[in-house]
Amino acid sequence: MNNPNPVSRAVMVRLYHFALSPFCRKVRLVLAEKKIDVELVEEKYWEPKTEFLRRNPAGKVPILKIDGMNLSESQAICEYIEETHPEPALMPSAPAERAEVRRLVAWFDDKFHHEVTKNLVYERVNKKIMRGGYPDGRAVKAGAANIKFHLSYMEWLLDHRRWLAGDRMTLADFTAAAHLSCLDYISDVDWNRSPAVKDWYATMKSRPAFRSILADQISGFIQPPHYANLDF
Amino acid sequence: MNNPNPVSRAVMVRLYHFALSPFCRKVRLVLAEKKIDVELVEEKYWEPKTEFLRRNPAGKVPILKIDGMNLSESQAICEYIEETHPEPALMPSAPAERAEVRRLVAWFDDKFHHEVTKNLVYERVNKKIMRGGYPDGRAVKAGAANIKFHLSYMEWLLDHRRWLAGDRMTLADFTAAAHLSCLDYISDVDWNRSPAVKDWYATMKSRPAFRSILADQISGFIQPPHYANLDF
Repeated sequence: MNNPNPVSRAVMVRLYHFALSPFCRKVRLVLAEKKIDVELVEEKYWEPKTEFLRRNPAGKVPILKIDGMNLSESQAICEYIEETHPEPALMPSAPAERAEVRRLVAWFDDKFHHEVTKNLVYERVNKKIMRGGYPDGRAVKAGAANIKFHLSYMEWLLDHRRWLAGDRMTLADFTAAAHLSCLDYISDVDWNRSPAVKDWYATMKSRPAFRSILADQISGFIQPPHYANLDF
Repeated sequence: MNNPNPVSRAVMVRLYHFALSPFCRKVRLVLAEKKIDVELVEEKYWEPKTEFLRRNPAGKVPILKIDGMNLSESQAICEYIEETHPEPALMPSAPAERAEVRRLVAWFDDKFHHEVTKNLVYERVNKKIMRGGYPDGRAVKAGAANIKFHLSYMEWLLDHRRWLAGDRMTLADFTAAAHLSCLDYISDVDWNRSPAVKDWYATMKSRPAFRSILADQISGFIQPPHYANLDF
């Protein structure tokens, strides 16, 4: 919306997003890795307008306007980007390795999301922004307990592999980093639990693709000092 | 487990599943469409054993033992089968059409699942089987209300397209049919709401791939007469 040039706006890729959504962050990271310029449009998805529901009847972000279409569902979007912009590759080429990447993407977007991100980020942040009431203490407690199990699982993976899904950095790493970055914004990750996970996240965070995410400012929630610090 | 021949058992594809899981049914339909023989092993996923958690640390079904690996997460499994057994194709080849299939798969496996399947099938069936208490009346009521919206959305899609995701039958159709077949087992689909959806489901149900699902018998839940009837 800050672009004053109507010509370049017309050809631009546009992402309707919410800054602290892990699904939107995953798409932002993938676009940045592929060096695809994107115009970010903040969407108050909890106050859906007709135009928004026309773009995605599911009433969710992210929605990526690209190649004249409005794509939705983060995994469908990421696979589309991978298929149309294969370099640099964020998916391996062997079917078995691709299955492992997709298993881990689903692990974070489904299991981790419901057990951790929802219980912490949605309760503490989204509810306040949406004026949806106070955080549910039981949910927050469950999220804080569950993240320990997940960090242990990530540590186990990283003890056996260089990256989460294998020898190369893939979409699985960006998916996990998208979730952890949202939790880190509200200081809900205990980085001292696992040096392997901390090292992995430090490497992810240092990538140029992460810059836009580290610059996010959520109204009403001050960015903690360690959040954008590469040496946290 | 009924195969007496140890040689053919060794090369068999095996699916650890629960009969009324829409995610397992999706994988069963895809395997049957691709004419891949599979040995079905019923898994009490709510009483996880060490061996089961070793196969899938997420503690969920389906788990597909294939090519010497244990694959999990239904979408990762289906994409693997599609990549290794491309005929007959259940995914289009153009990236935009693939994105639409994946959007709808996510629609049913995420949105429809949380709004409908979980509220009805899990409350009425899984809870009883797992001895998890009585159905939550509010959830059942919400599921019964939500399915109307979803059937309308399916009708809208089928008014514009021959199949859910476009001109060809795809994984989106099998995903939707997997969910609806679970709901139909407990008579929770009002087929009179939409002739277009009913016609579409009748066509899906008539496929040979559907036979094993129509033969399912869930202990404690008698199959209703219309369930396996192709002229329902």
